[in-house]
Amino acid sequence: MNFGVIGYGYWGPNVVRNLATLEGSRVISIADLDPAARQRAQRAYPSVHVTSCPTEVVTSTKIDAIAIVSPVWTHYELAKTALLNGKHVFVEKPFTLNSAQGEELVEIAESRNLKIMVDHTFLFTGAVRKMKEMIDDGSLGNLYYYDSTRINLGLLQHDVNVLWDLAPHDLSIMDHLIPGDPEAVGATGEKHLNCHEDVAYMTLYFPNKVIAHINVNWLSPVKVRMTLIGGEKRMVVWNDLVADEKVRVYDRGVNTETQEGIHKLLVNYRSGDMWAPRLEPVEALQQEMKYFVECIEKGTVPFNDGKAGLRVVRMLEAASESLAKRGALVYL
Amino acid sequence: MNFGVIGYGYWGPNVVRNLATLEGSRVISIADLDPAARQRAQRAYPSVHVTSCPTEVVTSTKIDAIAIVSPVWTHYELAKTALLNGKHVFVEKPFTLNSAQGEELVEIAESRNLKIMVDHTFLFTGAVRKMKEMIDDGSLGNLYYYDSTRINLGLLQHDVNVLWDLAPHDLSIMDHLIPGDPEAVGATGEKHLNCHEDVAYMTLYFPNKVIAHINVNWLSPVKVRMTLIGGEKRMVVWNDLVADEKVRVYDRGVNTETQEGIHKLLVNYRSGDMWAPRLEPVEALQQEMKYFVECIEKGTVPFNDGKAGLRVVRMLEAASESLAKRGALVYL
Amino acid sequence: MNFGVIGYGYWGPNVVRNLATLEGSRVISIADLDPAARQRAQRAYPSVHVTSCPTEVVTSTKIDAIAIVSPVWTHYELAKTALLNGKHVFVEKPFTLNSAQGEELVEIAESRNLKIMVDHTFLFTGAVRKMKEMIDDGSLGNLYYYDSTRINLGLLQHDVNVLWDLAPHDLSIMDHLIPGDPEAVGATGEKHLNCHEDVAYMTLYFPNKVIAHINVNWLSPVKVRMTLIGGEKRMVVWNDLVADEKVRVYDRGVNTETQEGIHKLLVNYRSGDMWAPRLEPVEALQQEMKYFVECIEKGTVPFNDGKAGLRVVRMLEAASESLAKRGALVYL
Amino acid sequence: MNFGVIGYGYWGPNVVRNLATLEGSRVISIADLDPAARQRAQRAYPSVHVTSCPTEVVTSTKIDAIAIVSPVWTHYELAKTALLNGKHVFVEKPFTLNSAQGEELVEIAESRNLKIMVDHTFLFTGAVRKMKEMIDDGSLGNLYYYDSTRINLGLLQHDVNVLWDLAPHDLSIMDHLIPGDPEAVGATGEKHLNCHEDVAYMTLYFPNKVIAHINVNWLSPVKVRMTLIGGEKRMVVWNDLVADEKVRVYDRGVNTETQEGIHKLLVNYRSGDMWAPRLEPVEALQQEMKYFVECIEKGTVPFNDGKAGLRVVRMLEAASESLAKRGALVYL
Repeated sequence: MNFGVIGYGYWGPNVVRNLATLEGSRVISIADLDPAARQRAQRAYPSVHVTSCPTEVVTSTKIDAIAIVSPVWTHYELAKTALLNGKHVFVEKPFTLNSAQGEELVEIAESRNLKIMVDHTFLFTGAVRKMKEMIDDGSLGNLYYYDSTRINLGLLQHDVNVLWDLAPHDLSIMDHLIPGDPEAVGATGEKHLNCHEDVAYMTLYFPNKVIAHINVNWLSPVKVRMTLIGGEKRMVVWNDLVADEKVRVYDRGVNTETQEGIHKLLVNYRSGDMWAPRLEPVEALQQEMKYFVECIEKGTVPFNDGKAGLRVVRMLEAASESLAKRGALVYL
Repeated sequence: MNFGVIGYGYWGPNVVRNLATLEGSRVISIADLDPAARQRAQRAYPSVHVTSCPTEVVTSTKIDAIAIVSPVWTHYELAKTALLNGKHVFVEKPFTLNSAQGEELVEIAESRNLKIMVDHTFLFTGAVRKMKEMIDDGSLGNLYYYDSTRINLGLLQHDVNVLWDLAPHDLSIMDHLIPGDPEAVGATGEKHLNCHEDVAYMTLYFPNKVIAHINVNWLSPVKVRMTLIGGEKRMVVWNDLVADEKVRVYDRGVNTETQEGIHKLLVNYRSGDMWAPRLEPVEALQQEMKYFVECIEKGTVPFNDGKAGLRVVRMLEAASESLAKRGALVYL
Repeated sequence: MNFGVIGYGYWGPNVVRNLATLEGSRVISIADLDPAARQRAQRAYPSVHVTSCPTEVVTSTKIDAIAIVSPVWTHYELAKTALLNGKHVFVEKPFTLNSAQGEELVEIAESRNLKIMVDHTFLFTGAVRKMKEMIDDGSLGNLYYYDSTRINLGLLQHDVNVLWDLAPHDLSIMDHLIPGDPEAVGATGEKHLNCHEDVAYMTLYFPNKVIAHINVNWLSPVKVRMTLIGGEKRMVVWNDLVADEKVRVYDRGVNTETQEGIHKLLVNYRSGDMWAPRLEPVEALQQEMKYFVECIEKGTVPFNDGKAGLRVVRMLEAASESLAKRGALVYL
Repeated sequence: MNFGVIGYGYWGPNVVRNLATLEGSRVISIADLDPAARQRAQRAYPSVHVTSCPTEVVTSTKIDAIAIVSPVWTHYELAKTALLNGKHVFVEKPFTLNSAQGEELVEIAESRNLKIMVDHTFLFTGAVRKMKEMIDDGSLGNLYYYDSTRINLGLLQHDVNVLWDLAPHDLSIMDHLIPGDPEAVGATGEKHLNCHEDVAYMTLYFPNKVIAHINVNWLSPVKVRMTLIGGEKRMVVWNDLVADEKVRVYDRGVNTETQEGIHKLLVNYRSGDMWAPRLEPVEALQQEMKYFVECIEKGTVPFNDGKAGLRVVRMLEAASESLAKRGALVYL
């Protein structure tokens, strides 16, 4: 399968490296507007065609699939042209600038039987796979909440706020792990340095009283990547910054018994063992690229397809709307 | 100064112990409805009058000041009677069930020149004192945000939700540290086990773009007590669960320069030293009781007076209102 | 059972409190040379006889058992007199100043059918009990090593070096957990502030290639209480300073297979789950005092008897001898 | 300056990458016995001469300096031939198999005015540079001890024991930081899996009561890289595994005053601030290679020269001798 890659900045080299070493795929063209990036690409891959013109790549008849690793405002045009030229599309998160763009891309792909995969890389980590497994096999029981903190010092984006920059990770993981779709979104936050929020908080209401909360912050002196998932039977703490035992499962919780009378709820705390399952030491992006090639070859629908990307974009849109209304609930 | 203490359950014995050893104060009466509590009190303090009748204590002519360490729904009646009988009042947090009660108590105390102190114990810890000092002397510069997480496994309250149980700590600290009063409050959350929220999130908007956020949770498998304060010059992380270096000051942040042209904001990350100041190893409650006696003797107004307690109750009331409206902003 | 307690300084009050609340035991006399300690004892226990004369206590006909919680140089005389007066003896660690004293006490106790218990409190913690259970049921497989670090800032002792002060904890735990007795001891260290070593290291050789190492230090800026136990099947890390999950069990290790040829040892690393068993939240000293009373009543021999205390003293003696010879091995 | 590199296994590629990007140096030959390694080298550096014959490289007239990144038993022969052919030598740690080899190499290099640099990479990390600075400027005061723990799961070496594998790091750092040379060495340890010690402990006695201790272990379930340096004025904890604040400086210690009488040493504990200086985020190996090229160009003697490598080998030799005598002291 011949690949063209658009964008060779921070993440692009990783995508190219994985496609280049993957059996069954080959990178034949790379486009980037920056001459320095093109030089780096050409030096690393002397036999690949390197160009400053993305259109050349997305329309090339020699190419089967396109990886779009360029800024979010370029996704829609590039993906649309690629799809209209019969190419499968792998695209960076967030999928598109808004849901209208995403819907159109999903429709075009479906009508032409082409695959879209949105780069929700975290779904392919050993940690998320293990949590997915535990939720699916009932180890956690009914879910209560999903609570994620993703903060650090860094103001990388001039075109989006901190929610669109950092929350796609949490939203795609949450979308993958929690059964059902959120019904409503509320978001609060504040701008301190420019016209985009640099601190923001997001609450999502799911059916069955499942609540999700996401704390993102570009102005934190310390880096935190911590997610708690509370279930009726067990609870999980995922700390992505520790070297070992990233996922810890706690056999702790609350046992409630039928109310006796009207004011009595018998509550017993359950404090049991903690268990840190061994996680597969895999490179997530490698797994993801391999899965993309397989989905194309076998004609199967990836779980992180355009619709998954679109769900995340809709949540971000709703969050932006709520943010503008200082937290008022927005229904999805 | 002769003290009467109402309530000898979990916290009461600490209050009595500190009053008993403090120079200038003496406990002469203790009231509790529970016979086992009275027995414990009498055994520990053979010379103190122990009774099942709180009214007897709050009206006693031998008593100068009352410490009310009983459930929140009893505060208003007991404090009112005590004040009307000419006694100074020390009262557990939260101050009252609602702001109307709090306002009335503040008025009565003022008209009779009596002191009310609300037990915001954390304000007397070495950690909060050090942070107060750093904010007041400008070490942090203009504040950006206050972000606190206070979660653990525990469903202790049948009469209030998790916000009224855990957030008074954060709200009183925040009220003490951040200049100015919050203008509006939003809160989200969910009930899983009974009719009170066990997971809740609160956002407070201050003047000058200062935002505060509080995450409280009775269903967390791990205990977290972590507060971040972001300032223009420095940032602070307060982890109350570590034995040493609870307060860490980071010389980190973002330097912004005047915009050149319309789209350019020059942002430089500043990554400097971290510094953990030595904290005074004091018992907070002891300092607080001592301060209460001093305020009475000198006629000075404590910073954690009835008005401070009332401010916290107003924020909690607004949060409850917002919670009922699923996050809609409530102005204070 | 009537108890007399000698010493009401730092640890004595804990011993008295536990004996006073334990069913089947009663404290009737307390001796301390320090008037302030006597005053505290009398205030806390108005009905107990408090005296400045230890001899009065250890010879009293009303007393069945003596708890000796005074400095180590007093242990021998007091314990001997108590035993000769027909009393059972509970004695602080280290048991005696040297092995000759310990041997004599053990002999006297045996000849008169009296019990000696040495206060190796850690053996009664949930952590050590769990590790003992796992070693005894074969969960760890054959043991490889025991490695303990016990360091902090503190120079409390003017009469002993850091080994005699801190290592008795590790030596008694090691003696309890590792099957068999050490054959030889080596110790190194240095004196910086006075005539006693304030930094010291101890290596103990057991049969079957089990090696133990103890690192003790009075001049560490941070407090560490960490023990690693390496076994063929599983390995344990015990961190006594964390609030939760003090004991962590790792399903990790090395699988070796039969050598093929002379230079080939096939080694496979095994990296599996980690598991933190729930520990019983008990007060160790309470369990120990209860066990002492039970052993006396039932006539059974405590595992932390005089002989166990003597084994620890012998190891300390050997370590001191090795320390004087700068690490030369001393056989036990 | 033209470089030849011997060995393209685990560490070799890093050496080549740094030499290739460094201004003033160029890699023109790479030798490795393994065909797969040669293939990787050739693919990554198409213009470099890749060969299976190290002798070809160390004798080549086009080459100015050799980097020897092959197993320790090859160091002596390769370095000697390179020096005799007039080349400067950069060599992996440990320098040689024994001190006789090291002495000969140092002599040859001196007589021909050639440079030897031993790859003590850690000396070029931000952490060690900062600690060196603090010791040299007197911030720590007189040193008391150096205590390092370097343990993990890993049995990588079939030809050396754990001391020769892991301790060179600590010994070279210690040699760099502590003024003066150690006078004597003691070492203990045990073999569990094959004929080499997999657990070992080393004590080094320096003048002025400075003591150093090194704990190395291939059978630890957890990875630890922790060094404590105790000084009269301040103490340092270096934890190399944390992402931030690797070096922490504690203003803690013991103040001693002149003895009054014979038994009184007045000891005051000093518990002050903790401070984590910002460390330069540099790649240590890059700094080291740059320094090597500079030393050759300017004719200066690197601090990690052959003599430094020889000092470390002598300590390892002494440790092996002591290990064979189960801890008996060996003088240097």
